[in-house]
Order: sequence, then C-alpha cells, then structure tokens
Amino acid sequence: MSETNQMTGDMPVEEFRKVGHQLIDWAADYLKNIETFPVLPNIEPGEIEKRLPKEAPKHGEDFDKIINDLEKNIIPGITHWNHPNFMAYFNSTSSGPGILGELLSAVFNTNGMLWKSSPANAELEFVVVNWFKQMLGLNQDFFGIVYDTASTSSFHAIAAARERTSLKIRNKGLASRKELPKLILYASEQAHSSIEKDAIALGIGKENVRLIEVDKDFRMKTNVLKEIIEEDKKNGFLPFCVVATIGTTSTTSVDPVDEIAEICKKENIWLHVDAAYAGVTAMLPEMKNFFKGVDKADSFVVNPHKWLFTPVDFSILYTTKPNILKQAFSLTPEYLKTQEEDKIINYMDYGIQLGRRFRALKFWFIIRYFGVAGLQNRIREHMRLARLFSKWIDENPNFERLAPVNFGTVCFRAVPQDVRNEEMLNNLNEELMESINRTGKLFLSHTKLNGKFTIRVVTSGLRTEERHVREAYELITEKLTENMTFN
Amino acid sequence: MSETNQMTGDMPVEEFRKVGHQLIDWAADYLKNIETFPVLPNIEPGEIEKRLPKEAPKHGEDFDKIINDLEKNIIPGITHWNHPNFMAYFNSTSSGPGILGELLSAVFNTNGMLWKSSPANAELEFVVVNWFKQMLGLNQDFFGIVYDTASTSSFHAIAAARERTSLKIRNKGLASRKELPKLILYASEQAHSSIEKDAIALGIGKENVRLIEVDKDFRMKTNVLKEIIEEDKKNGFLPFCVVATIGTTSTTSVDPVDEIAEICKKENIWLHVDAAYAGVTAMLPEMKNFFKGVDKADSFVVNPHKWLFTPVDFSILYTTKPNILKQAFSLTPEYLKTQEEDKIINYMDYGIQLGRRFRALKFWFIIRYFGVAGLQNRIREHMRLARLFSKWIDENPNFERLAPVNFGTVCFRAVPQDVRNEEMLNNLNEELMESINRTGKLFLSHTKLNGKFTIRVVTSGLRTEERHVREAYELITEKLTENMTFN
Repeated sequence: MSETNQMTGDMPVEEFRKVGHQLIDWAADYLKNIETFPVLPNIEPGEIEKRLPKEAPKHGEDFDKIINDLEKNIIPGITHWNHPNFMAYFNSTSSGPGILGELLSAVFNTNGMLWKSSPANAELEFVVVNWFKQMLGLNQDFFGIVYDTASTSSFHAIAAARERTSLKIRNKGLASRKELPKLILYASEQAHSSIEKDAIALGIGKENVRLIEVDKDFRMKTNVLKEIIEEDKKNGFLPFCVVATIGTTSTTSVDPVDEIAEICKKENIWLHVDAAYAGVTAMLPEMKNFFKGVDKADSFVVNPHKWLFTPVDFSILYTTKPNILKQAFSLTPEYLKTQEEDKIINYMDYGIQLGRRFRALKFWFIIRYFGVAGLQNRIREHMRLARLFSKWIDENPNFERLAPVNFGTVCFRAVPQDVRNEEMLNNLNEELMESINRTGKLFLSHTKLNGKFTIRVVTSGLRTEERHVREAYELITEKLTENMTFN
Repeated sequence: MSETNQMTGDMPVEEFRKVGHQLIDWAADYLKNIETFPVLPNIEPGEIEKRLPKEAPKHGEDFDKIINDLEKNIIPGITHWNHPNFMAYFNSTSSGPGILGELLSAVFNTNGMLWKSSPANAELEFVVVNWFKQMLGLNQDFFGIVYDTASTSSFHAIAAARERTSLKIRNKGLASRKELPKLILYASEQAHSSIEKDAIALGIGKENVRLIEVDKDFRMKTNVLKEIIEEDKKNGFLPFCVVATIGTTSTTSVDPVDEIAEICKKENIWLHVDAAYAGVTAMLPEMKNFFKGVDKADSFVVNPHKWLFTPVDFSILYTTKPNILKQAFSLTPEYLKTQEEDKIINYMDYGIQLGRRFRALKFWFIIRYFGVAGLQNRIREHMRLARLFSKWIDENPNFERLAPVNFGTVCFRAVPQDVRNEEMLNNLNEELMESINRTGKLFLSHTKLNGKFTIRVVTSGLRTEERHVREAYELITEKLTENMTFN
C-alpha cells in the first residue's frame, strides 16, 4: 500500500513538495504553450463524463495517475480562459501573482468570517479595498467589502436598498403586509441579467423590475426613467432602487450616472452602480468622464476578477452606507461572539455568506507585483487594441460596427453587399461566429442589438497582444469569405 | 526597471516558474512546521493594518520583497486553521491534494457559468457530486450542485421551497399582494444562524422563522413542531419549509429527520436538511442511524470544505427537485444563449451567482488521492478522538459534559467543586477559554447551552492526532488549576 493510503493525516509533506514542484512546472508549461490548445474545445455534450468512472475509487491513487488523467480526460474539455484568443463574454484572465496568491490562500485555508478567525484576512481586505478605492479615485466615504461575484455584490446592494425603506423588512418580511407598497427597481434594458435574478431572490418580483429604454448608444434614457418613476408613484408604488451600469455586458455602454444620481437624490432612491467590467478603467485619468456622478451613488460594484487579472472570484462592493447593509444582515449567534467587537470589522456582518475565503491575498500580490502604473498600462493597452480592431471593422465595407467602443469590447456584424435581408444577415453572422469558434483558434460570443445578431470581440485578456487581435481579424474576414462563397 | 514592470502581459513564465517553486517550498515548510506557529495570533485590532502602507505602490515590486512582507507583516495576523491544535468552530482544514487542486483551478481560471464556457467544469462537477452521492448513500434522485458555502446552499433550498408554493413569487414578488399568506419557515432553536439570514434575504422576515424548542439532547421537539404548524395554519399562514439539522453548530445534535419528514409529507412542506458539518459521516456504515429519513428530504446540504479536507469554499446542495430551483433562478439573456441547451447542464441556471469557479477539480483530486476508504478512515479516527477526549472529561469531576458526542465535537465546562453559582461558573469558563487561547498553543471556541457558557473541542482537523488531543486536555486542566488558584 502506497503512502497515499496512510490511514490518517494529510498527504506527507515531502510528497506535497514533490507533486507541488511537478504541478508548478506543469502550470508554467501550460501557460507557456497555451496557444497550442484549441481555445474552445470541440467536444460533444457528455464526452468528458463518459471518460470518467461512474464510481469513486475505493483506494487512494498515485498523483502521477491523477495528473495523467487530468491531461487525458479533463483538459480536452476545458475552455481555455487564459488563452490570448479567448475574446468571448468578458474574458477574465488570471495572472501569475494572482495564481500564486490562490495557492497560498488554500495553504492557509483561513475562514475570515470574524476578525478573530483570522485578523490578517480582515485587515488585509480592509487595506486592499482602500488602496483600490484610491486607485479608482472613489470618494473616501465608500466602505469596501469583497464578495465572490458581481451577482452577489449587487444582491447585497439591492438588499441594503430594500432595508433602507424602513419598512422593517428584515423582521417582518414582505408577504401578507397590507400596508406595504410594491417595491420597484429600475435598470436599463441593457442591464445585466443578475439584477433581475437578485430582484427575484429578494422577493421584489421580476415584473417589478422596470427595464428602462435606451438611446441609440444603449444608454438609459433618463427622461423615460423620470416618467416611469412618476407613474409608479402615482400608482402608490415605492421606487426604492435604480441600477445604473458603466460598461453593460452586451455593448459596454455607459448610463448617464450623473443625471441618474440627480433623479435618485430628488426621489430619495438608492443608486447602485454596476461597473463590474469597466470599473477598473477609473484608474486612468483619461477615463474619468465615464465615472461622473459615481460619488453620488450609494453603492458601486467592480470586479477585479474580470479585468484586473485576479483569479475568479473577486468582486468588490463599495457603499457609503455600510451600516444599512450591516443592519440588514448582521446576526451573531452565541458561538460567533467575540470580545473585541467594537474595535474591529467582522465581515460576516455584511452578507449572507458566513464562510469567507482569504481573497485579499491574491489581490495584494497583484497590486504589489504589477504596481498601479503596471496595471494602468495593461488596461490602456487593451483599450488601444479594441480601438485598433474597431478601426479595421470601420474601414471594411463588409462589416458594420453596432455600438460605440468605450472600453475593450467591439460589437459588429458582417454586412456583405449581396445580403440585405435582416433574417439572412442574422443567420449569416451566427454561422460566421460558429464557424470561427469551431476552428479552435478563436472564441467569440454574441449578443442581439435591435434584433441584429451581433458578434463581440473582447480584447481585455492579459495575454492578448496586437498580433492576436490582428490574427482574429484575419480569421474573421477569411471565414466570412468562405461563408459567402458557400452561401 | 525590473521585468515585473514590463508594460503589458503577465509575469514572464520563467519568473512564474521560479517563484512558484519558491512558494511550493515555502508552503511545504509552512505545513511541516505549522506546530511552531501560535494557532491564534496574539495581536491587537489594527496591528496588521498599521504595518501596511496606506497607498498602493506606484511601481511593481519584486516577489522576494512581497514574500518577505508576507512573512513579516501578514503571517503574524493569521489564525492557523490548518494547525492541529485549531479546535474551534468547525475547523475546516485543507489537504495537500485540495491545495494543489486550487492551484490548477486558478491556472485554468475557467468560469463554469455555461456548459460551453468550460464543458469540463460542468461535467466534472456532475461526476464528482454523483460519486459523492453514492459515497453518502443518498438516493439516486438527488441532483447535486456546488455552491460556495452552506449559507448559499440553504439560501437556494429555501428559495426553491418558496418557489414551490406556486404563488408566482418569481414574477410578482411578495410585497403588496393582498392574496398572499404569510410564509412560515421552521427550524430548531439550535439551527445555524444562516437559516435566519437566508429567510431575511428572501423576504420571509425574521419573525416568520419559528425556532422550535429542543429536547435535553438539543433535538427539535417534533410534537412542538406539529402544534406550531397547526396554529400557523389556523391563523391563515402558509408553512412552506422546515429545516432539520444533522450536526448543529453548537452541539452537533441531530434532529429526528425521519419524524420531521413525515410531518412535512403530510403538510406538503419542503424539507431541507442542513448537514453542512456532519453530512460527510454518512460515508460510514456505522453512522447510518443519524441519517434516517434523509431520503425523504427535498434538499440536503453537505460541506466537503468543513470536514473533508477541501479548501474553502465547497458546499454541495442535493435536491430531488432541481426543476423548481431552475424555475426560480433560470434567466438567460441573449449574450449567454448557446446552441446545445437541451443536451447539457448550464449550472448558472440553478442560482443567483453567474460566475462559477472550477471547484470540482480540487474535490476530484481529494477523492482520488485519498480514496473512499482513506476518507472514511480519517473521519472515523476524528470521531474516535472526540470520544476519547469526552471520556477524559467524563472521568474528571472538575468537568461536566453538556451534550452528547455524536461526531467530532465535545461540549463541556469546568465545574470545580467550590464554584456552584452559575454566573461564577460562566465567568470562570470564559476566562478559562480565553486564557487557553492566549497561550497560542490551542484555539477553542464556545457556545451557550441553557444559559451555561460551554467550551467546545473539535477534533475533526486533518492534522489533529491523538497526541494533540491529549495535550489539549492537559493544557485545559493545567489552566483550570491556575485559574482556580488565582480566583
């Protein structure tokens, strides 16, 4: 029986060391050779499952065998998010320092629910969210807290907005209270689906989320927002939260936060700003115009795991009203009471999740290793690449750009001269994208804008260089020619 | 300017390799020497914060400097969860294979929101939750999904219970609906605080959570549950969910799930079983009696990150009604639509979080490395250690055990012959625990049972051996003697 089967305790430390070194080399080689992998695997549903045994092994196995299986049976099913040609969705990429931070977080395995349960977790989180607040130029009044995802950050923001209504919802709930008005939440038609999910979860109801019309640049129309708020008030409803987006998921459009903030102030409505993707660009002086009004928001979410090279998950919610958030969620059972409660932050008080990984460590590694200037340079370069790609699209009569390029994302479609029917254009563009994705050389995703099938190219991957963007453009034009010939 | 300041791209691969090897050695040495660290740091609030700069560095720094700072300024504030003398709370510990799994998850950095966004994530998750279902002896009808924490798993279970009422809550919400009854949730007085937090978030309201009285062994009294449900129905309320716990946080008591399941079946109420801590013991044939009735539950949560050596976070929710969960949360915007939707699982459809780390990988590593028998042996040994410690407590007249020892946790207090006043006993025990924790040799936490300050000893750490439990007992008795002399 091998050491792996010893009856108690962990893997022997010297075996951990040996396998650890092996896997670091494996990881370094993987990252070095990442371009040799198909970015999107070309496999059928169920294929990975079929390769794996139906039952767990009774006895422990050697790590060599596990690594071998990883290569043979898991890797073929992986979509390589760190591949420079992954230009779909918003392409979260993880940097070396971030990866090594995750390694150490798992080594410590601290659960930072309480200050006491690991003071370094609480205090390093406090320090890095404050660093980042300064980097973004946010007002000092913002208090930051790290959650897993933007869905969760926005969930807590909307929960705080709900709490702020002073309707005693924490205690009495929402159901069967005749005195309660309908609570209404506002976001643009282009807001992220997580906002509606959060509203569903919080008992607001999907039909009480007003998706406000957007202008030609996909920005929330503030006059429509005003009108609908008026109408809701006339009906006796309670407008309690507006979500404005800086960098929507489809087109990276930017809602006029400043104007929306004025409306919210006048109407006493909580303003939550979803800047999950584009928030990091506030680090650049030349981008400040997109963030006008943010200081008047009640909460603001930004995801370093989206575009700041931090391994998933890492989302920060900033709020000027942490006490309301705490009021909504603080609940300390006896087994979690500690003596220093008035002097410290117990982050568990600010959310539904009690367990909290040591996420601050990886972000600390990243900020220190790259430095503020290093991070700014990278983001700036990604935006340059997007403008470059956009220029090629604009110059080619076979393409049509479908939205302004505000950050690192370009929305466009093919419009070959001989195809003018919208349905045919949609089919052609969908087939164009799928044919590109099938090559394994490039991974793109889509959206629909005014009924038009829209291809998105995202250039904000850490490893994406000009040559990748150029090759992407070439592949797209090549595939378009093929598709046109074929049709 | 050093390489770390290069203008674009990641840390150079060869630097990642070098630092990676350095950190693997660092981690191996840390785990090897973990007993030389004080398990609970003896620092003042704000001490770590004070050691760190108020601003982020403008330029990137060398990794040697970062590691040096980690040792000098962060480690002194870390509570060492992997320390064998961490016997507080429920002591999540991370194993070598789990740590290495986290390393690779961060290297891939896949976001498994959709099947397509990384098929291996979806299919490996499907495979490992099914393996584990068999290991636990759960009915085949259970569908498993991985969330971050038990708070989140229970949140989704209660949300599904809410959805099952057919009150169209997803769409219409809860507020201002005169036809809606009050929704009532039941759990024992000993249930985890996350259940109440979840109910608050979901708009149920804290006062609509009925905390049912427990018997002398801290088990929910089913006759009281029945009566209160009757009363609520008489008042026109809607009992919609009962949460039974297998292994409560204070004492690891076990609610009579079988009887509760009968009540739920008769009353058409969703039964959620919170087995976050103790669920893993269902792997042992000799523990089956604690799990009677579980197959009649609608949902069941178990946390491999609590007692199966998986780095936080990793919680599995099993439910026989995944379609209801999906009905509550599925919402697919255009930019996330894919072609293979009827053939695959998009796990994002089962929760509020869109972003999903590749958590299945670390669990796969753990099951394969230790094997089912290896995991069973470890859990069995931890329970033996708890019984051993409990025996010493029972044999010593200076102590009183305050709850049955069902798993790996012992609840007790000191009762020196000359102290019989309850308030004095509480003060003495609190001071006893604090004086132990201040030594840095052992970390214990407490609860209150029937007003009695209760010390908890948890022996389910991966690195906790008989000698640690013996030393813990010796330290406790030594400190008790000191305290008694001192008083």
